Amino acid sequence: MERIKKVTQEISELDTELIKKTRRRLDNLTKPLGSLGRLEELAAQVCGITGKESPALGNKVIFTLAADHGVTAEGVSAYPQEVTAQMVYNFLAGGAGINVLAQHVGARVAIVDMGVACDLKPDPRLTVKKIAYGTKNMAAGPAMTRQEAVSAVCAGCEVFERELRRGADIIGTGEMGIGNTTSASAITACFTGRPLEDITGRGAGLDDKGLARKIEVLKKALLVNRPDASDPIDVLSKVGGFEIAGLAGIILAAAARKVPVVVDGFISSAAALTAYRIEPKVKNYMIAAHESVEGGHAHILAHIGLKPLLNLQLRLGEGTGAALAMGLADAAVKILTQMATFQSANVSEKKNE
Amino acid sequence: MERIKKVTQEISELDTELIKKTRRRLDNLTKPLGSLGRLEELAAQVCGITGKESPALGNKVIFTLAADHGVTAEGVSAYPQEVTAQMVYNFLAGGAGINVLAQHVGARVAIVDMGVACDLKPDPRLTVKKIAYGTKNMAAGPAMTRQEAVSAVCAGCEVFERELRRGADIIGTGEMGIGNTTSASAITACFTGRPLEDITGRGAGLDDKGLARKIEVLKKALLVNRPDASDPIDVLSKVGGFEIAGLAGIILAAAARKVPVVVDGFISSAAALTAYRIEPKVKNYMIAAHESVEGGHAHILAHIGLKPLLNLQLRLGEGTGAALAMGLADAAVKILTQMATFQSANVSEKKNE
Repeated sequence: MERIKKVTQEISELDTELIKKTRRRLDNLTKPLGSLGRLEELAAQVCGITGKESPALGNKVIFTLAADHGVTAEGVSAYPQEVTAQMVYNFLAGGAGINVLAQHVGARVAIVDMGVACDLKPDPRLTVKKIAYGTKNMAAGPAMTRQEAVSAVCAGCEVFERELRRGADIIGTGEMGIGNTTSASAITACFTGRPLEDITGRGAGLDDKGLARKIEVLKKALLVNRPDASDPIDVLSKVGGFEIAGLAGIILAAAARKVPVVVDGFISSAAALTAYRIEPKVKNYMIAAHESVEGGHAHILAHIGLKPLLNLQLRLGEGTGAALAMGLADAAVKILTQMATFQSANVSEKKNE
Repeated sequence: MERIKKVTQEISELDTELIKKTRRRLDNLTKPLGSLGRLEELAAQVCGITGKESPALGNKVIFTLAADHGVTAEGVSAYPQEVTAQMVYNFLAGGAGINVLAQHVGARVAIVDMGVACDLKPDPRLTVKKIAYGTKNMAAGPAMTRQEAVSAVCAGCEVFERELRRGADIIGTGEMGIGNTTSASAITACFTGRPLEDITGRGAGLDDKGLARKIEVLKKALLVNRPDASDPIDVLSKVGGFEIAGLAGIILAAAARKVPVVVDGFISSAAALTAYRIEPKVKNYMIAAHESVEGGHAHILAHIGLKPLLNLQLRLGEGTGAALAMGLADAAVKILTQMATFQSANVSEKKNE
């Protein structure tokens, strides 16, 4: 806990003076006032986060964390558990959605085994931070011990620090874990108080019967564990997942180092919500990539107070939406740093009406 | 008119067999069925348009057409008319929003003088298709002659054909013209039958008084000209603009050559609506980039039946939203062509429930 406490203490408020200055600078570029809408907000936010007048987002990193979930034993997913490991190999081979979209926006993908249920073949591109061989079945008891939850959050911090040393101007969160929408729904229920029916979706493709079963399993998990919403580590340990805990750590560590975090879909947002409950100031460092089809996602975003940039009906995870939104953040910063001003381009300004 | 007729006759239906085949192919990629949402639709649409199984969108072109509007004499814009020419120089110097965003997505910008009110300094990067030195004041009579409207549409076709020879896998529309939201509102009123109050916005930044005046001017223009909505060329000539007519020509010509068209904001969409009224089949070739803050835009998109990809509160024009959406189309096609299949990556498929 000491490490987590230390990281959260390093998270400061944004540089509001610089945000104001950036807005004035945006107003002086050759375009009608505010006409680039959310791109302008985004540019100002990135300045406020980084403390840099003219940030550059050349180094982009997507963190794709993988782990397994004991709750899959309850039949809460349309895919078998072995898919988690298979998809990690797919990430390493460059064939997954996140590989294609990360490359499209010029981001590198940091792939981390946080707790896949088997030993993966060693690979120099795979970071192994395995806390355990998957969580335990949360419908029968806690998903992990409190110590495991803390270790997973700390592992996230370490993974972030290592990538920061390699260069990370902006990061995105991503995950893979069969069964992890179930964990994300449980976390969302704890922190938002919303009924499970509102925040539980079909995940990778459950039918009506599967969805009803998933809600039953969630009810059981919450009843058996009684997570304490005022204690985020308790929530993580009882109904979380290793990749979700790891992402919470990455988000906190990035905020501590003034690096903007693009939060992907539902599961990543459950991690963001956990980080927010650990330290509310982290919210200002977050950029919500998109609104997922998974119904719980909109509730998390509203709860934290984030407005998604994209609505492309995505529900893949892995960091795919974050990659696309990272491209928008990059565009926003380029607007700020590359556009001409009215003066430099000799363009007349608005008439006084 | 012969040329326009010839172009429209070359517009065919999309390749629906290939669209179906593409969907099956998308379903076999390593992701839950349909989990990349609108990116998947977009990939299938691009295949259906181009007729190519594995299209590549390396050559991206944004057409930014500039022209002046006589109606500015009525005080319908927050900026003086000279800004149109000044912004063309800004485009040529690379300092405008469209330059930054086009470069961000790897697109080139084709800048065309369709009818700026002064002679612009010759520049090899500027295409001059000047129909006249701005339109006439539509509040007092027709904006242009019928022949001028036809010439402007044909000029658009020519501009497209030239860029196609240089390579154009996907194009985006853009414009610059002080006063052109007034023309776009008039066109929208004619074709959608919507009351002016619903489809008239603040353009580059009118205050309440300015907006009320703009609506009065529009009422006068429609009363004086009585454009015939069943005759798109009549609408263009009476209340259109040279850049809007040119864009309609570009859109029709692109569809005739099976090239996807990313339609930018309100003014570009007024051009798209005109093209759609000339030949409804052109709709299938269109990708709506974003939903503009300018209120009339949503009405046009609903009328044609297009769903915008982005909602970033943009209202700059120039093709800025189209550039960003072009990046998404490129990403969509890469998903189709670069992702691994379940078989090739040895990933287990969905369980039978």
